[in-house]
Amino acid sequence: MAPETRQRQADRSRETRRKLMEATVACLVELGWSGTTTTVVAERAGVSRGAQLHHFRTRGELVAAAVEHLGAESVLHLKERARTVHGSVVAVVELIADFYASDLFTAALELWVAARTDPDLRTVVVPLEARIGRETHRLAVELLNADEAKPGVREAVQITLDLVRGLALANQLTDDGNRRRRIVRHWARMLEAALEGDGL
Amino acid sequence: MAPETRQRQADRSRETRRKLMEATVACLVELGWSGTTTTVVAERAGVSRGAQLHHFRTRGELVAAAVEHLGAESVLHLKERARTVHGSVVAVVELIADFYASDLFTAALELWVAARTDPDLRTVVVPLEARIGRETHRLAVELLNADEAKPGVREAVQITLDLVRGLALANQLTDDGNRRRRIVRHWARMLEAALEGDGL
Repeated sequence: MAPETRQRQADRSRETRRKLMEATVACLVELGWSGTTTTVVAERAGVSRGAQLHHFRTRGELVAAAVEHLGAESVLHLKERARTVHGSVVAVVELIADFYASDLFTAALELWVAARTDPDLRTVVVPLEARIGRETHRLAVELLNADEAKPGVREAVQITLDLVRGLALANQLTDDGNRRRRIVRHWARMLEAALEGDGL
Repeated sequence: MAPETRQRQADRSRETRRKLMEATVACLVELGWSGTTTTVVAERAGVSRGAQLHHFRTRGELVAAAVEHLGAESVLHLKERARTVHGSVVAVVELIADFYASDLFTAALELWVAARTDPDLRTVVVPLEARIGRETHRLAVELLNADEAKPGVREAVQITLDLVRGLALANQLTDDGNRRRRIVRHWARMLEAALEGDGL
């Protein structure tokens, strides 16, 4: 096979994967886990069932890959936006909170909840959750320019992430945006003091 | 009908309701929303389908009543335990965090997530969520003996509840108890300072 043909095939294959993963997240957000069947996803992505099976053997594999893919893309997007806020703790915490109160969180929540009572799905999701947990912690440390050697700083970063997760959950059924913004700003001021390492 | 007969019937009716609601929560925790059908619940509760229909017309009604019932019982239990900790902020925050990282939260999470993509269920769950939100806030204020007139105290109480909600979510797939206890103790110390109204 000529190298250009091989390159074109690889591009097409990547494009098919991307289409499937984006359709999966859209389905999770719109229809929930139970409505996100491989058939519905293939149709929405405009991909044949054969091509879909070539990329993802099971629904669990497809959905986990989709959440991981969207996660990675969102991290890049978040880092880019973080560059524009020049290290303001309030602005960074607002960015992280918005990052959580997004379709990514909604899609992940559908997957996490389904995995709790589905042993096969669980084996896929538990390592994914651990990986995403480590990566978001590292990202928050970086964006906040946090020195974890100072007493209490590591805990304050963790509180930030658990808090925005709780706030994102409160945003699932109704728009909780106004309350969220108030809480986030208040916490950001407490965090600012904690990052100085006041030793609490 | 003799008054004693009427009383016995009322007792039996209450007992049937209680059995159905407890079986519902057990099903939600064990099987998730999709496995919690009215048939499975009636079987587990040892109640006829006719009797079940007399008490709850739809699955949504049954599940919402079950979550509300368990919520009210848990609040009583929490208040009782709170009496034994004599106003220690750390102990109270630990109690609230344990209250959230319980089967009640797991059952409610199944219901909340299902309601997001089910319009009928949503009309039942949105007011329930608002009511539970108000009640837990009031309960937290009471247990923490918080003076919301002081600047920042109201926000600190809200941060507590959103934080324990985020921590409870992290506990769904794997046991996150050790990390949770560390974070809760750290936050409780920050909260203690905030309750003094340091004006942040």
